Amino acid sequence: MDEFDIETVADPELDDPVLVEGLPGVGHVGKLAAEHLLEELDSELVRRVYSTHFPPQVSIDEGQASLACAEFHAVTPEEGQDMLVLSGDHQAQDNQGHYGLTSTFLDVADDFGVERVFALGGVPTGELIEEYDVLGATTTEDFRETLDDAGVEFREDEPAGGIVGVSGLLLGLGKRRDVPACCLMGETSGYLVDPKSAQAVLEILQEVVGFDVDYGTLEERADEMEEVVRKIQEMEQQNSPSPADEDLRYIG
Amino acid sequence: MDEFDIETVADPELDDPVLVEGLPGVGHVGKLAAEHLLEELDSELVRRVYSTHFPPQVSIDEGQASLACAEFHAVTPEEGQDMLVLSGDHQAQDNQGHYGLTSTFLDVADDFGVERVFALGGVPTGELIEEYDVLGATTTEDFRETLDDAGVEFREDEPAGGIVGVSGLLLGLGKRRDVPACCLMGETSGYLVDPKSAQAVLEILQEVVGFDVDYGTLEERADEMEEVVRKIQEMEQQNSPSPADEDLRYIG
Amino acid sequence: MDEFDIETVADPELDDPVLVEGLPGVGHVGKLAAEHLLEELDSELVRRVYSTHFPPQVSIDEGQASLACAEFHAVTPEEGQDMLVLSGDHQAQDNQGHYGLTSTFLDVADDFGVERVFALGGVPTGELIEEYDVLGATTTEDFRETLDDAGVEFREDEPAGGIVGVSGLLLGLGKRRDVPACCLMGETSGYLVDPKSAQAVLEILQEVVGFDVDYGTLEERADEMEEVVRKIQEMEQQNSPSPADEDLRYIG
Amino acid sequence: MDEFDIETVADPELDDPVLVEGLPGVGHVGKLAAEHLLEELDSELVRRVYSTHFPPQVSIDEGQASLACAEFHAVTPEEGQDMLVLSGDHQAQDNQGHYGLTSTFLDVADDFGVERVFALGGVPTGELIEEYDVLGATTTEDFRETLDDAGVEFREDEPAGGIVGVSGLLLGLGKRRDVPACCLMGETSGYLVDPKSAQAVLEILQEVVGFDVDYGTLEERADEMEEVVRKIQEMEQQNSPSPADEDLRYIG
Repeated sequence: MDEFDIETVADPELDDPVLVEGLPGVGHVGKLAAEHLLEELDSELVRRVYSTHFPPQVSIDEGQASLACAEFHAVTPEEGQDMLVLSGDHQAQDNQGHYGLTSTFLDVADDFGVERVFALGGVPTGELIEEYDVLGATTTEDFRETLDDAGVEFREDEPAGGIVGVSGLLLGLGKRRDVPACCLMGETSGYLVDPKSAQAVLEILQEVVGFDVDYGTLEERADEMEEVVRKIQEMEQQNSPSPADEDLRYIG
Repeated sequence: MDEFDIETVADPELDDPVLVEGLPGVGHVGKLAAEHLLEELDSELVRRVYSTHFPPQVSIDEGQASLACAEFHAVTPEEGQDMLVLSGDHQAQDNQGHYGLTSTFLDVADDFGVERVFALGGVPTGELIEEYDVLGATTTEDFRETLDDAGVEFREDEPAGGIVGVSGLLLGLGKRRDVPACCLMGETSGYLVDPKSAQAVLEILQEVVGFDVDYGTLEERADEMEEVVRKIQEMEQQNSPSPADEDLRYIG
Repeated sequence: MDEFDIETVADPELDDPVLVEGLPGVGHVGKLAAEHLLEELDSELVRRVYSTHFPPQVSIDEGQASLACAEFHAVTPEEGQDMLVLSGDHQAQDNQGHYGLTSTFLDVADDFGVERVFALGGVPTGELIEEYDVLGATTTEDFRETLDDAGVEFREDEPAGGIVGVSGLLLGLGKRRDVPACCLMGETSGYLVDPKSAQAVLEILQEVVGFDVDYGTLEERADEMEEVVRKIQEMEQQNSPSPADEDLRYIG
Repeated sequence: MDEFDIETVADPELDDPVLVEGLPGVGHVGKLAAEHLLEELDSELVRRVYSTHFPPQVSIDEGQASLACAEFHAVTPEEGQDMLVLSGDHQAQDNQGHYGLTSTFLDVADDFGVERVFALGGVPTGELIEEYDVLGATTTEDFRETLDDAGVEFREDEPAGGIVGVSGLLLGLGKRRDVPACCLMGETSGYLVDPKSAQAVLEILQEVVGFDVDYGTLEERADEMEEVVRKIQEMEQQNSPSPADEDLRYIG
C-alpha cells in the first residue's frame, strides 16, 4: 500500500466545483457541517483516500469492516455551485501525514477542476457562545472581500495560534498551488460538540456558494446539547454559593 | 536491511489454505490460540518476516540469539483445510509499520494461495466472563453467513472502537485486495491472559475450517488462571465490607 | 510537496556574504538578534524554505494565511559585509527534520556564496545575568582567533550538553562541508525573553562583520523585561522572610 | 546528508580482525571497556559514522564543535588478533535508526574483513555485585563453546528481556549475514557506572582475542565508585534502624 492512496469510486463531470472540507476538529464543527450537507443534499461517493498516516484501524458497522479513510462526495444541487465534499472520521497521526494528505486532497480537487476551497472548522473561545460569529482566513484579497460581504469576521491576529492540521494546510498549500482557499471557523466554546456553530458556518457557505438546505436536524441536535449544558449549570448552582456565570472553563 | 524482509525457510505446496493470525493483543487470546494450533498439530516453519518497525531486539534462549520476527508455519492436518499460521512475539511499533507489515503478511498469504483470512483476537468487556461469546467482523456477506452459522455473534456497532493493529488491517487491506477476511474476537475481561477465550475462538475456527485438536493444555492453563482470580477475589472480600462482585475493574 | 522545499523570491548578487541564523531557542536570543537586524537594516526577502518537518500550520495576520516556513533576507549594508539573515517562527519537529533543514539552509547559503556562518543563540545559566558574556564555539582555529579578539569567551567543556538543533548542526554539517561556522551564545537566565543578551550577541557580530545598527528598540524591550523581573522579585520579598537573591530558579 | 553516512579517515590493512563494540548502555560497561582498550593500546581512527538518527547535536570541546557520530579505531596489538573498536557517545534515537546504524556498522566491519563480532555491555541485577560474572549470548554453537571455555556464563532465559539496541542487533543482523557474533554482558547493579564490570568483560575478551592490557586506571575508577557507594550506605545506616543490606534498589 502506498503512503497516500486514492481510490476512484465514480468519476462524474462537475461544473467549476468548490471543495468543502469538514474533517474532525474543535467542537466537530466542520465535520457536523460537512455531514449535514451530505444528509440534506443528493450526493455521490467519488473518491476514497487511504493512508498509512491514518490510524491502523477498521471501523465495524454491523460486523462489516471499513478501513480508515477520507471520502469525497460530489454534490450537484439544483441551486448554487457544484461541490466536492471531503469528510471522514480521522486526521493524520503525524506532521508528514498532515502535509501529505492535504497535498493528496488538493490533487483530487485538481482532478475535478475545483476553483475554490472552503475549509470548515471551529475556533474555541472558552466561553458559552450567545451569538455565533464566523471567523475567516483566506489566501487572496478577492476571496476575503467576498467573505466579508457574506458576514465573515476578519480580526487582527485571530486565531492567535494560527490554524493547524488539514484546514490550515489547505490554505497554506492551496496558496502555493494558486487555488484560492479560505477557512470558515465558527466560534464555539470548545467543550462540546456544537451544532449551532456548524449551522452558523453553513449559513455563510450557503450565502457564498448558493445551495439551499434545511437546518431542522441540526437545530434538534443543538436543542439536545443545550439541555446537557442546562443540567451542568444546574448542578453547578446547587454546589456553589457564587453566582452562576457562563464560563464553562471548569468542565475542561 | 529492508524495511520489511521476508525470509523463505521452506516452500511446501498448500491446498487452498486459510491464513490464521495470532499476534499479541488483548488477553493474548489470538496468540494463545495460534500457539495452541502449532503445539497440537504438525507444522513446518515456512517464512520469517523481519522489519525495522519491530523492536530493535533479539530474544535469548540458552545463550542463542534470535532477531525479532513474525513466523508463518504451514499446517496440513488430516482433517480440514490446510492452514498458514502467523504467530510471533511482537507488533509493529508505529502506524506505518502496522500498515507495511500487514501488507507484507498478505503478500506471503498470496504466495501460498490463501483464499480466506482469519484474524484471531480478544475483545475486552471489563467484567469476568461467564459464557465466552465470540464476536465477529468480516469483509463479505458470504463470510458473515458462514460465521453466523458457526455461532459467531455480530452486534451493531461492536467493537465500538473498531479493530486496531494487524488484526484490523488484515480486514481493511484484505478487503482492498479482494481476499475475504474476518476477525474472530473472543470476549475476555481484558485484565488477564485468557486461555478460555482462546479456546472459544478456536472452537469456532475448528467448526469452519475443520481441524481436530485437543484442548487439554488450554484447559489446564485456564484452571491456573482461575486460581489466580479466586485468590484476588478472596483478598478483596477480606479487605472490603461490601459484597464481592465480579467486576475486576479495580485491578486495572 | 517535497520534504524540504526552497522557494526563490529574489536572486540578488551578494558579495562574499555571511550567513546569520536566528531561529527560536533559549531566551529567544537568536531570534531577537536576527529580527533586530532586519528591522534596523534594509533587507530583501530572497528565499522561503517550507518543510513537512515544520508544524502543519498556517499563521494568520489580518485574515491572510501564511504557511509555516523559514525565511532568508539579503542585507547589503553600507558598512560591513553582506549578510544572508535566516529567521522564522519554527524549528523542525523531529531529528531528521533538524538534519534535513540544516542541510537545506546550507544549500541556500552555498547558492549565495556564503563564506562563513554565524549561528546566534542563548545559553541558559539559571541565574539573572549582570554582565552579558557571549560564549563561542567554532569549527576552525582561525575563526576562533577572530572571535577571541572580538571578546567571545571560549570555555573548556561549555556548554556542557553541547549545542542542539539547527544552531548546533550548522556547525556540525558546516564543518563537514568546509564552511567555517561558529555559534555565538549570549548568556541568559533561561527564564525570560532576553533582549539584553540579544544585544550582547549583536555587538560581537557587529565587531566581526562590521555593520552599524542602533540598539534603542532592543533597550526599550529590555527595560520592559526588567520591570517584569522587578515585580516578581517584589512579590517574592513580601512572601518570604529570607533575603532576596537573584536566583530565579523558582520561576522555572 | 544521507540517513547513514560513512566517512573514511584512514584505510589500513587489518589481519582477520574482530569487531569490538562499546556504545553507551547499562552501567556504561561496554563504553568503559571499549574506551579502556583505546587508552591502553595504540590505535588509529579509521571511520566515522554520522546519521540523521543520532541526536541533532554537536559536542563542544574547548570551543571546537564535533558532530554526533560513532567512531571505528583500528588496533593492531603485538599480541593477539587485530581489532576494530566501535565507540561513541550516542545510540540511535528511534527503532529504524537502530536497525540502519547496525547495518552500517556491519558494512564497515565487512570492509575490514571482520570475522567475528563482540558486542560489549552490562546486564542489570538490581543488587550490588560481589563476583562479576559475565553472561553471554551468541549466534553459533562454535562461538558459544569458545566463550564457555573462557568462563562466560550461559543461562536459560537470561537476560529475560532479550538484548535491545545496537548490541542486540549486532547479533540479530550478524546472524542473518553469517558473521558469528556474541554479546558479553558484565553483571552490574544497574545504578552506577561500573568499571569493575567493564574489567570483567575485558578479561574475557582478552582470553579469547589475546591482547595484553593493564587494568590500573579501571581499578582506580572502581575504587572511586566504591567510595561513593560506601558513603551512600553510611548515610543509609544513620537514617535507618534496620540492618544495612546490599540491596541498592532504593537509589533507583
